[in-house]
Amino acid sequence: MKKVLKAILPAGFKANGIACGLKKSGKLDLALLYSETLARACAKFTTNSIIAAPLVVTKKHLKSGKGFQAVIVNSGNANCFTGKAGIKDAFLTAEYLAQELNIPRKRVLVNSTGVIGKRLDITKIKRGIPELVSGLSSAGIAKAKKAIMTTDTFAKEITLSLKIGANIVHICGIAKGAGMIAPDMATMLCFIMTDAAIKSEVLDKALIGAVDKSFNCISVDGCMSTNDTVLVLANGAAGNKIISGGKDLEEFSQALEVICLELAKMVILDAEGATKFIQIDVAQAKDWRQARRVALNIANSVLFKTAVFGKNPNFGRVAAAVGASGLKISEKQLKIKLGSLKAKQVKLLVSLSQGKANCTVFTSDLSPEYIKINAAYN
Amino acid sequence: MKKVLKAILPAGFKANGIACGLKKSGKLDLALLYSETLARACAKFTTNSIIAAPLVVTKKHLKSGKGFQAVIVNSGNANCFTGKAGIKDAFLTAEYLAQELNIPRKRVLVNSTGVIGKRLDITKIKRGIPELVSGLSSAGIAKAKKAIMTTDTFAKEITLSLKIGANIVHICGIAKGAGMIAPDMATMLCFIMTDAAIKSEVLDKALIGAVDKSFNCISVDGCMSTNDTVLVLANGAAGNKIISGGKDLEEFSQALEVICLELAKMVILDAEGATKFIQIDVAQAKDWRQARRVALNIANSVLFKTAVFGKNPNFGRVAAAVGASGLKISEKQLKIKLGSLKAKQVKLLVSLSQGKANCTVFTSDLSPEYIKINAAYN
Repeated sequence: MKKVLKAILPAGFKANGIACGLKKSGKLDLALLYSETLARACAKFTTNSIIAAPLVVTKKHLKSGKGFQAVIVNSGNANCFTGKAGIKDAFLTAEYLAQELNIPRKRVLVNSTGVIGKRLDITKIKRGIPELVSGLSSAGIAKAKKAIMTTDTFAKEITLSLKIGANIVHICGIAKGAGMIAPDMATMLCFIMTDAAIKSEVLDKALIGAVDKSFNCISVDGCMSTNDTVLVLANGAAGNKIISGGKDLEEFSQALEVICLELAKMVILDAEGATKFIQIDVAQAKDWRQARRVALNIANSVLFKTAVFGKNPNFGRVAAAVGASGLKISEKQLKIKLGSLKAKQVKLLVSLSQGKANCTVFTSDLSPEYIKINAAYN
Repeated sequence: MKKVLKAILPAGFKANGIACGLKKSGKLDLALLYSETLARACAKFTTNSIIAAPLVVTKKHLKSGKGFQAVIVNSGNANCFTGKAGIKDAFLTAEYLAQELNIPRKRVLVNSTGVIGKRLDITKIKRGIPELVSGLSSAGIAKAKKAIMTTDTFAKEITLSLKIGANIVHICGIAKGAGMIAPDMATMLCFIMTDAAIKSEVLDKALIGAVDKSFNCISVDGCMSTNDTVLVLANGAAGNKIISGGKDLEEFSQALEVICLELAKMVILDAEGATKFIQIDVAQAKDWRQARRVALNIANSVLFKTAVFGKNPNFGRVAAAVGASGLKISEKQLKIKLGSLKAKQVKLLVSLSQGKANCTVFTSDLSPEYIKINAAYN
């Protein structure tokens, strides 16, 4: 497996990013990911019951369609809590793009990220689409990855290649994060493109596994977003024997997990206002779910995060967070080991004496800068 | 019912507060509440599975004892996560006080608040006890209420009087709060003294009702403490016909609820770093529990709290918090009305279109000052 921390599009993919005017700053705000041939698609979405309009459209297309060619994403506006009008805007976005690409609308998937509760300016998107399409190229991923950013300070990108049979297949992922990051699904936007040929069912299973151990194991602020999406497009352009099980699937799944985990860690590295990257290892749990619940309870403790910001080794707050997780545990069973708080990377090890399972969760500290960013963001 | 926002001890109670040296600042840090005759006691504690050593002792005494005379409370050290030694220290605290008061140890209840995970300096407590006891007086409550404070900026106190039959009974409550405040029990320390004669069973029931609608409806930071306690002592010195049901119980319960609610609101008013006092009314819920769950999910949303701090009417974050609460709700059913963010008091009304129940929760905003306080606290 070869890994490079840069987005390089697999065979048969093109991309582009433009500034269509949704962001007042004039920065890139409209991205397009495009597959020349029909690709299979699998996705995991937020479990928030208030979901954004583009997710309604994307879910509908995924359900009724079989092959997909385009993902259009705008930043600067989440198109969420915008009622029927918002859903119409999301459909129109897909429709305008489909017309320009000359493909059926159902092959287009839509996503948005930004402020919640504000109507999307569909005219700006419509006006931008011709430029967005005409500029499609392999190198265009460099613009696309920037066009999906909101408060991110750097683009999250990674490309892996691995051998499947006699062929080399490539997997490329980009993501955006920064705030409103809490598990129970992706908690941000992530788009993964692969030229591997792979059966939809096994791709779906591999994605669930990868997301559970990556995006569902990070938290910035405990706030679950309404737009979270992890989407994989697989177009088969690598020409490999279709992956359906066995060692090939195992290796592909492992690669997908690396992609998701690396991107998830980048999201935490770039968490709003963060000064620390915190790794929480919970060991000796009854099962993985228990370990994860305890780890996330610590990760979401405002007091723990604040203590780490202050370089204050307050392990009592860790104990309080473990005890508040609902786990029945005695003081004697609980072991806490907190590494040095001086470096940017901080490690916390918590042992529960309940069993043999473990889970690692990544989080950031909570700083006055986070509050500054989010007090003003609208 | 007559209400005064000052602690005035009911008949038969005395109190005192001294500085025994636990706080480096030299401020008051050891409090004693004392009943001249045996009092019944009821208490609600934190549901955190890591509980502080004094709670172990207090629970034991409450279980085996029948009448109680003293509550000793230190601030500056929570005596939590301190192992067997910590439990011994809590027993010794009760023992030393019992000797000085010349009463059985089981009549003494113990509590602590402050830093978690640090051994209590029992010598300082032992040395302070003679002064603590010799200074007992009715007026001593003015010192006791200060001696239980940690980062509180003002003492929380209230006294109610009401007529039960031909007698006037009094209920006086003091509390400390400030940080690590989240429901599922008291989430702070609160001591209520009454001279009413009342059966233990009905007092317990009245306390559960009052706590549910007050201390279990507030949140500062979503962090559940290990020492939370609401304790009522009822010594019967008012000489009323013992309260066991009917209109008397109804009125007493109502008074107890007022005491708890007013003290809970004071805790929020004095929340660490808070610039806003936020009232969240959730209406049209299926039942009270649903309304409370939704309200607390909003109250604990770091992004909502930060938006209020920034006077930023970001109702999208309210919608995201409602949707993340697990409630199945459509966008159309959800109505959000956020009052002006300019004043110190902010009102948020959320209607769910699910039924007729409602719940009110109180919370504070999240400011850089909160982080400053908690980054340094140890």
